[in-house]
Amino acid sequence: MNKGRRTREKIIRKAAPIFNRKGFEGTALSDLMRATSLEKGGIYRHFASKEQLAVEAFDYSWKTAVEARLEGTQNITNTVDRLKRMVRNFRERRDGLVPGGCPLLNTAIDSDDGNVALREKARQALAAWIERLRGIAEEGQRNGEIRRDIHPGEMSNLVVSTLEGSLMLNRLQRSEEPLAIACGHLEKYLETEIRSKESKCVREKS
Amino acid sequence: MNKGRRTREKIIRKAAPIFNRKGFEGTALSDLMRATSLEKGGIYRHFASKEQLAVEAFDYSWKTAVEARLEGTQNITNTVDRLKRMVRNFRERRDGLVPGGCPLLNTAIDSDDGNVALREKARQALAAWIERLRGIAEEGQRNGEIRRDIHPGEMSNLVVSTLEGSLMLNRLQRSEEPLAIACGHLEKYLETEIRSKESKCVREKS
Repeated sequence: MNKGRRTREKIIRKAAPIFNRKGFEGTALSDLMRATSLEKGGIYRHFASKEQLAVEAFDYSWKTAVEARLEGTQNITNTVDRLKRMVRNFRERRDGLVPGGCPLLNTAIDSDDGNVALREKARQALAAWIERLRGIAEEGQRNGEIRRDIHPGEMSNLVVSTLEGSLMLNRLQRSEEPLAIACGHLEKYLETEIRSKESKCVREKS
Repeated sequence: MNKGRRTREKIIRKAAPIFNRKGFEGTALSDLMRATSLEKGGIYRHFASKEQLAVEAFDYSWKTAVEARLEGTQNITNTVDRLKRMVRNFRERRDGLVPGGCPLLNTAIDSDDGNVALREKARQALAAWIERLRGIAEEGQRNGEIRRDIHPGEMSNLVVSTLEGSLMLNRLQRSEEPLAIACGHLEKYLETEIRSKESKCVREKS
């Protein structure tokens, strides 16, 4: 990687926690200069605008979050167990994330009536996350692990809503309890309302 | 009400949707001047600071939301039905709210790493809401309508998490579906996991 590319990536990495914490409007050029130890010209040589930098910072923060949430799930063959692991990862794998909380939640609220490019980024990230859960549910329906009378899109919407909402409560209460309660509820929900009965019998017999 | 008081209340009413949409940092004095048709001096004659105005605007927005969510619930004697009505109100009574979405969600994210006074306001509002739901659940446990083996605090945390998270998804997807799914799930949850069996039998017999 050449020096220009390295500097560019360093700027993104340093800017990501600032945008994630302070939002687009709340992030000042002086914050970005302090974090990167660069002058204005040194930053904007690599990015066309504050918006472009914010968009790439979101991509970086979100990629980090997705990797943490998927960790170890690929090897789990049973689809319900895979969904349960994703729920557990959401709760347990937060140490390596970009500081400031879930980038999706932050960007969704921050850009809701503001920056269009950021809002579109957040919308796409949410859609991809829901789509991933939905795909797992459909796979489970095909192979008989998941009940055929549940709606995969509804399941994935509900899981994401419950996780994101409880994370908001966690942050406001400076407590781990709301997310722990939500994850407990979702694990039970996946076990009792999503896992197919036939699949349960096979598990119990084996 | 004298003229000064009326002006003060008008400023709060006009400022509330701006703070609710744009957040504390994102709200410029020029936005407030435009909305109120007042000069800077005309606004700050009534408020010690932008922070004080933002705090009072939050109180106004939150009061409006609470009133909408409680509408018609006081007359419902059965506690589970009262909880279900509160869930339904959250979804259906959003027309009269201060524009910009749930003030709690907005302020929680906006002030999380920023304004301390606003964060404290949002924290108190959340605590009061959870406390209200918890109180209803405890009342239901005393009179046998609600299962004694459920934890009222967990129930109320879960309901609020699920509602707030799905509202975030609604906004990002510009769709009513996530909240509709979440409310459907919560109504079923209240019916099957919260309402006591004895209470169900009484209802069926009567």
